[in-house]
Amino acid sequence: MAAAKDAPYNLVYWPGIPGRGEHIRLALEEAGAKYTDTAFSEGGVDEVLAFVQGNVPDDGINPPVLAPPILKHADVVISQTPNILQYLGSHLGLVPDADKDRNGLYRVNALALTALDGLSNEPHDCHHPIASGLYYEDQKPESKRRSEDYVKNRLPKFLTYFERVLQSKSSGDGPWLYGGRLTYADLVLFQCLDGLKFMFPKAVAKLEREGKHSKVFALHQAVAERPRIAAYLESSRRQKYSNGIYRYYEELDIEP
Amino acid sequence: MAAAKDAPYNLVYWPGIPGRGEHIRLALEEAGAKYTDTAFSEGGVDEVLAFVQGNVPDDGINPPVLAPPILKHADVVISQTPNILQYLGSHLGLVPDADKDRNGLYRVNALALTALDGLSNEPHDCHHPIASGLYYEDQKPESKRRSEDYVKNRLPKFLTYFERVLQSKSSGDGPWLYGGRLTYADLVLFQCLDGLKFMFPKAVAKLEREGKHSKVFALHQAVAERPRIAAYLESSRRQKYSNGIYRYYEELDIEP
Repeated sequence: MAAAKDAPYNLVYWPGIPGRGEHIRLALEEAGAKYTDTAFSEGGVDEVLAFVQGNVPDDGINPPVLAPPILKHADVVISQTPNILQYLGSHLGLVPDADKDRNGLYRVNALALTALDGLSNEPHDCHHPIASGLYYEDQKPESKRRSEDYVKNRLPKFLTYFERVLQSKSSGDGPWLYGGRLTYADLVLFQCLDGLKFMFPKAVAKLEREGKHSKVFALHQAVAERPRIAAYLESSRRQKYSNGIYRYYEELDIEP
Repeated sequence: MAAAKDAPYNLVYWPGIPGRGEHIRLALEEAGAKYTDTAFSEGGVDEVLAFVQGNVPDDGINPPVLAPPILKHADVVISQTPNILQYLGSHLGLVPDADKDRNGLYRVNALALTALDGLSNEPHDCHHPIASGLYYEDQKPESKRRSEDYVKNRLPKFLTYFERVLQSKSSGDGPWLYGGRLTYADLVLFQCLDGLKFMFPKAVAKLEREGKHSKVFALHQAVAERPRIAAYLESSRRQKYSNGIYRYYEELDIEP
């Protein structure tokens, strides 16, 4: 469908935080795709709120969505970070070539889902272990306890897993997770590690010093050095971490 | 690939609990597919442990997996519940016809991911809010607090969302979430609601009495009445809920 091919990509996401929307932005930026972003458009937050509050009219094609990030592209309106990444991955060439490796899509998707589970959703719950609808200040002791477990047990477990992936034959040559080429799973792992460096600087620095996850850290570096990503990271489109998924609280910056 | 088409499906999952493996079983059962299941095979737990402990030899094709459920099919070894469901959905006819509705796959995937987020992962964290590696008994006060928030705020939010999906035009005719036909997203929502009925019987019964989510409850009933699902639910292959995702603790059975 030519119309869909030429249609711009529209990201609907909260302004003010990189958040889960950042995974979508990195895919669009790496591909050099044209896109709009409600984080930077006038009235953008109203569009996010319309979706969140269920006030978007039924278009007869797309099911309602519950929460951002949301991608609008031609007549497609879809939510869920790993789902949007699959869609963009296929459209923007950030997945294995389905003609040569028909099941590569599933292998890459598993890697992205695992990174999002352990290195994005779990960190979020470190500062919101009791309820996402309560303030951090209402769950501080529980956050401390959860963060202690996270940096001691969960974070090393997930980094060790991805190190193993990078050492496996299926990763191919070069710094990438699968098939010797950059996929959206690499962008996800980059963003997760980048956020964790901000949120738990002591724990991540210690893991980096220990040298057991050198391929994971090398992947982070390799993504940051991609020409389009490097330009993006320097631009004003790259928002600073604040009160999103990855937050810095001194009392949670635990040295394991 | 004829070999893959005829190859049996092999589910690798813990014995003794329905768990996340149950979503995979329901897809296989609904389709009448032949499959093996480590939950019922001699030495099955050793196969699960080999994966979990990273002792499965590198096959040169598939990245290592971190955790079950795992699907083995021909030369494919993939993990992550929603990912396996996508794979099976395409192979077993539990997704929209890609030739007629090329983006239906993404719409269905978003629904499954949202159900798993809010109605499976969040319930799990109700009894493990601090650390999945600790016993429930080590996080009882936190579990109570999280469960109170869950049944009061999160559970109604997600059921209201799915009711809205079922009322939208994109759901089509009949009891299903998308396109007027059964997809794996329906099986996921069935299993989630089924588990929640076990875990939070008072809260779910109250929501059912209130009548605001009648289409969600009707979907649960419609899935339970599918001939192959009904036979499965009566069989010994359908395991009882115990210490998995959906657990019954009297102190968490809160009437909101």
